[in-house]
Amino acid sequence: MQLKEMDTAQLQALKIDLQKQYADYQKMGLKLNMSRGKPCQEQLDLAMPMLDIKETRAADGTDARNYGVLDGLPEAKAFMAAFMSVPEENVIVFGNSSLNIMYDTVMRAYVFGVLPNNTPWKDQGKIKFLCPVPGYDRHFGVTEAFGFELIEVPMTENGPDMATVESLVASDAQIKGIWCVPKYSNPQGYVYSDETVRRLAAMPTAADDFRVFWDNAYCVHHLDMDKPAQILDFLAECAAAGNPERPFIFGSTSKITFPGAGLAAFAAGEQTVNYVKKLMASQTIGYDKLNQLRHIKFFGNIDGLLAHMAKHAAILQPKFAMVADTLQRELGDLGCAEWTNPQGGYFMSFNTWPGLAKKVVAMCKEAGVELTGAGATYPHGIDKEDKNIRIAPSMPSLEDLRQAAELFCLCVKLASVEKLLTEK
Amino acid sequence: MQLKEMDTAQLQALKIDLQKQYADYQKMGLKLNMSRGKPCQEQLDLAMPMLDIKETRAADGTDARNYGVLDGLPEAKAFMAAFMSVPEENVIVFGNSSLNIMYDTVMRAYVFGVLPNNTPWKDQGKIKFLCPVPGYDRHFGVTEAFGFELIEVPMTENGPDMATVESLVASDAQIKGIWCVPKYSNPQGYVYSDETVRRLAAMPTAADDFRVFWDNAYCVHHLDMDKPAQILDFLAECAAAGNPERPFIFGSTSKITFPGAGLAAFAAGEQTVNYVKKLMASQTIGYDKLNQLRHIKFFGNIDGLLAHMAKHAAILQPKFAMVADTLQRELGDLGCAEWTNPQGGYFMSFNTWPGLAKKVVAMCKEAGVELTGAGATYPHGIDKEDKNIRIAPSMPSLEDLRQAAELFCLCVKLASVEKLLTEK
Repeated sequence: MQLKEMDTAQLQALKIDLQKQYADYQKMGLKLNMSRGKPCQEQLDLAMPMLDIKETRAADGTDARNYGVLDGLPEAKAFMAAFMSVPEENVIVFGNSSLNIMYDTVMRAYVFGVLPNNTPWKDQGKIKFLCPVPGYDRHFGVTEAFGFELIEVPMTENGPDMATVESLVASDAQIKGIWCVPKYSNPQGYVYSDETVRRLAAMPTAADDFRVFWDNAYCVHHLDMDKPAQILDFLAECAAAGNPERPFIFGSTSKITFPGAGLAAFAAGEQTVNYVKKLMASQTIGYDKLNQLRHIKFFGNIDGLLAHMAKHAAILQPKFAMVADTLQRELGDLGCAEWTNPQGGYFMSFNTWPGLAKKVVAMCKEAGVELTGAGATYPHGIDKEDKNIRIAPSMPSLEDLRQAAELFCLCVKLASVEKLLTEK
Repeated sequence: MQLKEMDTAQLQALKIDLQKQYADYQKMGLKLNMSRGKPCQEQLDLAMPMLDIKETRAADGTDARNYGVLDGLPEAKAFMAAFMSVPEENVIVFGNSSLNIMYDTVMRAYVFGVLPNNTPWKDQGKIKFLCPVPGYDRHFGVTEAFGFELIEVPMTENGPDMATVESLVASDAQIKGIWCVPKYSNPQGYVYSDETVRRLAAMPTAADDFRVFWDNAYCVHHLDMDKPAQILDFLAECAAAGNPERPFIFGSTSKITFPGAGLAAFAAGEQTVNYVKKLMASQTIGYDKLNQLRHIKFFGNIDGLLAHMAKHAAILQPKFAMVADTLQRELGDLGCAEWTNPQGGYFMSFNTWPGLAKKVVAMCKEAGVELTGAGATYPHGIDKEDKNIRIAPSMPSLEDLRQAAELFCLCVKLASVEKLLTEK
């Protein structure tokens, strides 16, 4: 029975029952964290044999312990190119953090500009950026840091609402970029359709220095390795559409080997790659090549990496299934929430009725379960409808997750019942 | 006999002899590199046991494999603080490259400003920077990248010429910083005197956002561990002089463990450290904590690090002595050159007669010995007198170094003789 179909007496009875259950949870002294997309210990253990690798010589004889090799060892570039599905010559291997590459990419555009004219964004007045919402808080944070105006664009199951995107970028030359997580989007787990990818590659833009920030963070992070989501090759689509320098592509092994001790890489059109190499030459002498060799020797090739991802999937899939089953069982018939059931990535997106997200997150916290802060999936942390919550099932154990998901459902129900009663 | 005392006939006879020797060198097909301050293989081998360390738990229980800990594990901060002779709470541990920290420090000042008013340098017109010369090309390169005007200040045996520095910074608010390598300066190996350090800490500056970029790159890189150079504690001197936020201090283990796979750190006044932490939170989630643990467990403490540096000194000291002996033997009586004899660091500074540095470097290259490009020790690579050459003895073997040093002396002699003959 849907909550909205209940009369006041039914709702009041339900409320008393839910409050009792909530009080029981409070007594349990839970201390669970579903706030960030962190791999769990079992996932991290999968990569421990990588630390046995003490290779110091690159294939070309380079001593990987010493200075030099700005853009990555040749075998590291080849490996990251295969991983990111782009040609080797379009890749630069950086340090341990793709977020850091994204920040530096925005910084370089801001200070030095991008092709074709290299006019710094700092000298072009108020810069605007498109942010598909709900989205990733750290993406928004980078462009917030530089003071850009963030324009929200609604997400659909096929990616950003392209009619809105096309109309905005066609008419406003101050719009210089858009944040995209094309496969298993954060937080929905949506996969960009071929049409979305093609339209992003081909759409006319008023700004000749417009860029698509393509954070392919979850490109191999399938929950079912037999049904991997596929997206079009964005670099090739942009080139085919006559916009070869439009994409800024990012990837990392942070959620494959070790967050903080993985490899991160950047891919772009040929001219952009050369331009970035020139600018980064004053930033550093080179990144950690020993860690590059560790990764290469551990995986061997892209097949080795995919076999490794199957082990991650075996750990993560039951966790996502547990949350999905609990949500369906507890909330499926009540009509008070909607959520996504991703086939990969690290998150699920959950919507309460408007005005309840903060309340639900606060209630969970009071009972010992920490969620991503409500609003985090929107620029400046402001979800005007106060309804979106990002669920991150990876970190807790299956048993902890069961408790956390049940408590979460309880809080959603209680908050919804209270809202209905207030409105009656 | 000094070259200048020779008559034309003597010079011509000498020239013919030197040309014959040079031709013999050309036939040898040498391929030696003295261009960069790279550790040699034996030095890199010293740190190989560090790669056996597979510690993943920090002392406080943090899983160092996972996300988080923006400013470094507590034990990493404590270790780098001891290494840099500053309090723990003033330290941030970054990634693998102190150059990268310096670049980001300039970038943050440029985009976001520094204390007390956080007025971005980009909004303050033409920014000027003091560059003690000869100096380090990569320092100059960072400030060149941001388009600053680089003002040369002569170096003395006690550090930058302080009368010049004080007069410039007192009168020109556009001067926002100075590059300093206070111990074993690059390329001279000079050590800043106590008076220099105190004057840098206390001097009045027209700009309230003036900063001293204190790259203490060689703080433990002594050639004689029994006679380590000491410099005053710059952070404390600045605080005592009422300028607690003036210093930006940089250090790294690149030339202690592995270049490219070391630890780099930043130290500054308390308010600056807090400000930087706030800004860097949008740049990255954290650096490689596994590498932090590798370093901590390998060295144990600062005494372990100093014991390790003694092994470096045992390798490097004979190389510096070989070059110094060769220079003295071949050029000591000729009056055509001057050079430094450092007690630490990675370089010697060598001056030819004006107008000959490029020629000598080119002659060496033609005979198979690569030196740092002439001019590299000056902003924009322009040594107006064309006389300074940086010598980097660390990388070649002792035998290779003997040949390279002898060829170098030969080229200096030949170029000097030719110059004298042209002028006669």
